[in-house]
Amino acid sequence: MNILFIMYDQLRHDYLSCAGHPHLQTPNMDRLAARGLRFTNAYVQSPVCGASRMSFYTGRYMSSHGATWNNVPLKVGEQTLGDHLRRCGMRSWLIGKTHMKADADGMDRLGIAHDGVIGTRLGEAGFDTWVRDDGLWAEGPAGPYDGRRSPYNAYLAARGYGGTNPWHDHANSSVDADGNTASGFLMRHAGKPAHVHEPDSETAWLTDRAIDFLDSDAANSRWLAHLSYIKPHWPYIVPAPYHALYNADHVPPVMRDTAERQDPHPVFGAFMDGDISRSFHDPKVRDTIIPAYMGLIKQCDDHLGRLLDHLEATGRDRDTMIVLTSDHGDYLGDHWMGEKDLFHAPSVKVPLIIVDPRPNADATRGRTCDALVEAIDLAPTFVEVAGGTPPDHILEGRSLRPWLYGETPDKWRTAAISEYDYGATEVADQLGQAPRDCRLFMVATKEWKLMAAAGFERVMLFDLVTDPDELHDLGTDPAHADKVQEMMDLLNRWSRRMSQRTTISEDAMRARRGGADRVGILIGVWDEAGVPQDTLDIYSGPARPLPDA
Amino acid sequence: MNILFIMYDQLRHDYLSCAGHPHLQTPNMDRLAARGLRFTNAYVQSPVCGASRMSFYTGRYMSSHGATWNNVPLKVGEQTLGDHLRRCGMRSWLIGKTHMKADADGMDRLGIAHDGVIGTRLGEAGFDTWVRDDGLWAEGPAGPYDGRRSPYNAYLAARGYGGTNPWHDHANSSVDADGNTASGFLMRHAGKPAHVHEPDSETAWLTDRAIDFLDSDAANSRWLAHLSYIKPHWPYIVPAPYHALYNADHVPPVMRDTAERQDPHPVFGAFMDGDISRSFHDPKVRDTIIPAYMGLIKQCDDHLGRLLDHLEATGRDRDTMIVLTSDHGDYLGDHWMGEKDLFHAPSVKVPLIIVDPRPNADATRGRTCDALVEAIDLAPTFVEVAGGTPPDHILEGRSLRPWLYGETPDKWRTAAISEYDYGATEVADQLGQAPRDCRLFMVATKEWKLMAAAGFERVMLFDLVTDPDELHDLGTDPAHADKVQEMMDLLNRWSRRMSQRTTISEDAMRARRGGADRVGILIGVWDEAGVPQDTLDIYSGPARPLPDA
Repeated sequence: MNILFIMYDQLRHDYLSCAGHPHLQTPNMDRLAARGLRFTNAYVQSPVCGASRMSFYTGRYMSSHGATWNNVPLKVGEQTLGDHLRRCGMRSWLIGKTHMKADADGMDRLGIAHDGVIGTRLGEAGFDTWVRDDGLWAEGPAGPYDGRRSPYNAYLAARGYGGTNPWHDHANSSVDADGNTASGFLMRHAGKPAHVHEPDSETAWLTDRAIDFLDSDAANSRWLAHLSYIKPHWPYIVPAPYHALYNADHVPPVMRDTAERQDPHPVFGAFMDGDISRSFHDPKVRDTIIPAYMGLIKQCDDHLGRLLDHLEATGRDRDTMIVLTSDHGDYLGDHWMGEKDLFHAPSVKVPLIIVDPRPNADATRGRTCDALVEAIDLAPTFVEVAGGTPPDHILEGRSLRPWLYGETPDKWRTAAISEYDYGATEVADQLGQAPRDCRLFMVATKEWKLMAAAGFERVMLFDLVTDPDELHDLGTDPAHADKVQEMMDLLNRWSRRMSQRTTISEDAMRARRGGADRVGILIGVWDEAGVPQDTLDIYSGPARPLPDA
Repeated sequence: MNILFIMYDQLRHDYLSCAGHPHLQTPNMDRLAARGLRFTNAYVQSPVCGASRMSFYTGRYMSSHGATWNNVPLKVGEQTLGDHLRRCGMRSWLIGKTHMKADADGMDRLGIAHDGVIGTRLGEAGFDTWVRDDGLWAEGPAGPYDGRRSPYNAYLAARGYGGTNPWHDHANSSVDADGNTASGFLMRHAGKPAHVHEPDSETAWLTDRAIDFLDSDAANSRWLAHLSYIKPHWPYIVPAPYHALYNADHVPPVMRDTAERQDPHPVFGAFMDGDISRSFHDPKVRDTIIPAYMGLIKQCDDHLGRLLDHLEATGRDRDTMIVLTSDHGDYLGDHWMGEKDLFHAPSVKVPLIIVDPRPNADATRGRTCDALVEAIDLAPTFVEVAGGTPPDHILEGRSLRPWLYGETPDKWRTAAISEYDYGATEVADQLGQAPRDCRLFMVATKEWKLMAAAGFERVMLFDLVTDPDELHDLGTDPAHADKVQEMMDLLNRWSRRMSQRTTISEDAMRARRGGADRVGILIGVWDEAGVPQDTLDIYSGPARPLPDA
């Protein structure tokens, strides 16, 4: 079996029709949900692109792999899906975005050529590259955000789009009434159509590349293909006809409460007061942005349909596990926040649908599963699909296979964890904190969610049963002190986990218990009693004479 | 300045005359103490050879570097003293033991030749090898404990010692009345003289190698030399005349209390009941072993004197920092325990003397310092000596330089941490635990010490002021519940530390705050207001026409 691992970027868990969106129809995502199992409590390990993705790719918590934010290099020693699946005879291909930054210093220190097979994989989160496009080809006075060559810009240029950065000028901009570029980076333009033929847009182009892959020789050996879209991530702008499908009437009510603004937790307060969040306090911003965001999702869904049709037409749907998810959500003004960063559901929960074509999974087709699952569960799931045994001294997640087969695994986790490092953000400056102190933690059961910040005694606590929208922070309520302690205990137990002993398996550790005498090590032994004769034999016999002094 | 980093193995903190031993005279260790600063609260990060040493060499806590026990490979990505000092133009040389196991799988995965310069250093904890001798050349029916070639055995063979393993048959055995080998692995032989000429013993031989190094061309460039002895580690047997210097009258009173045996913490209880510990419950074992252990230390001290004389004769004492320490202690029957493993002072505290010949350190010569210091503080100290700035996103310790200069650093730690992984021990089997669950933690202030075991609610607590010998466990005393909570809070705060973001410095993280618009990233921006004109310029201008569809 092969694996098609589809990731969207910044796709909210509740912006699919199968997840209950009131106005957005996503028939192709729903088609997957009907064929597979949809997880309704899927958490990412960090609500920011780079850190979240490195957890998906390594199967490890953010504080375990250490790539805690965008463009923090993943340590050269960390293993990824590519490494684990290669050992099972399955190759992992990248089609799109990883937000991976290579550990160039580490490679230099270890004498690894950056452009060799090993070095290249280290720079691509362990994948072999079909096409890499991180989808942020922004440019400023200090140069580009991403210094690589953009394959998407190369495509647009070959198609006849002009300028040095058609990604911006065409795919992510519109044209104003005066015939000038109206950049999608300015949200006031979000409702205008992107200045690109829809089939040349980034979502369409990347889908074409995925179909190329499926039709290629590479797909004749066992594969995982990570089809990783930049959309519906900002810039919030979409080509016709998608720009005009939705309007302010289709925007769900904002999920926020004035109580959230009164005496908030200092870190939450600082984020709410940041420029990005304050933008989203304005209803016109939501009413402009969200229809464009919905249009981007609708476009993604249409291209998903095209891809699924291709899989079915070629029979590959029968030997391919399909996974659909996102790296994090988007507050879109909920909780007085823009972007992601914190741990309310719109940010930290993601869609997760898994279609397993094997008969064993028939039991759960079209169903939902509310188990607490984490992004790091995919890596071990994939290793099992590839026929391997997940190396549980490295991978911190657990295979989702039992859930797919309708089984309830023993001792499944009772709390999900997410983390966030805001050390590179302006909030850190505002709070006067050293980068290493900017650590946020979420621990969530099905009933409660706690958010804690290093260095702050105060925590945030939400009762997810009576307050599913997470509007009423009970963290300072004396009546909930015991619950806070209970949730902190969960966090603390997790914090003391064994996460770095990755060079030796549990079985190998276990095999070392006892038996030191087999290699001649006798500790605390007074005399021959109890020592095996074959060990004693080696250590006894007539003494040899001393040589001359 | 150069650095002579001397480590003994299993040398208790209180078995030096300058530390108050009632019968053992160590005039050369005392000579260092008189010339330098002696730290009286020095803790190792794990009371077992391999894990402790990897913390010394990486400057990181055990759960950060992940080499949690003997022969657990240190991950190929972990940086060591060798890496850090090389960047400062100082080379690190190994003379003796590291107990380092190479991450062969990691090297293979990254295409690193095991026998190249980089691969060799990775296999030697980052050191360049003058001579490597881990000092455990035991052999059993299943083969040797250490599969390397023994340079010490090669030396003995060249000197005319016979047999395949003169390390065992001569240096670590005696001869019984019948002329047969009396193995030092059987403690009943501890009082007999080792069957080796003293100048050929391991301690003498390694000291010779150190003097060779000092006289070599290698010592003409800036160096750190890690002179790392196996002794006074078991087998407890020592050549004449050292075997006869001490007897049962010189053995300090055992430090244990029957109260410790009544309802002990389950993990402590299991260790106390292990074969090794039970051996040491018998007074005759202490009375036999400890005089030999003292003889081994006395021999170490004499050879230290020879080395110091050489340094002085060659003037190298004036440009060399000398550090004397150990990787852990030895219970020797105290607390009903043999060996090390747990966190009572005899096991977890070590001698630490630093002689800094620079005039700035004159203020503290001959003094003691009771600050809480950790093994991981040496790496940053050495980086400073080498002229560098300790990379505090990697190294978790702090430079001891201020203490050496008689200064009191700002915000010095108020608690020391140590850890232990007993997953490969028989205690784990006895308690029925999976390896990953076998995690022990110590947190110690100057006044209190707490020991906690993952999976056990119960902790151990000692009042170091009223009970400096740690005989009365207050962990279950309701009157100390608040103190337990306070100590657990310290442990938990430490557990949530940022330990793996080692690929980017604090300064680099800080430099990322703000300024995204300089590379063209505009997030949450409604219109042109507030956007720098030079960014707007890049994103504006007349729109180019669309190419044909």
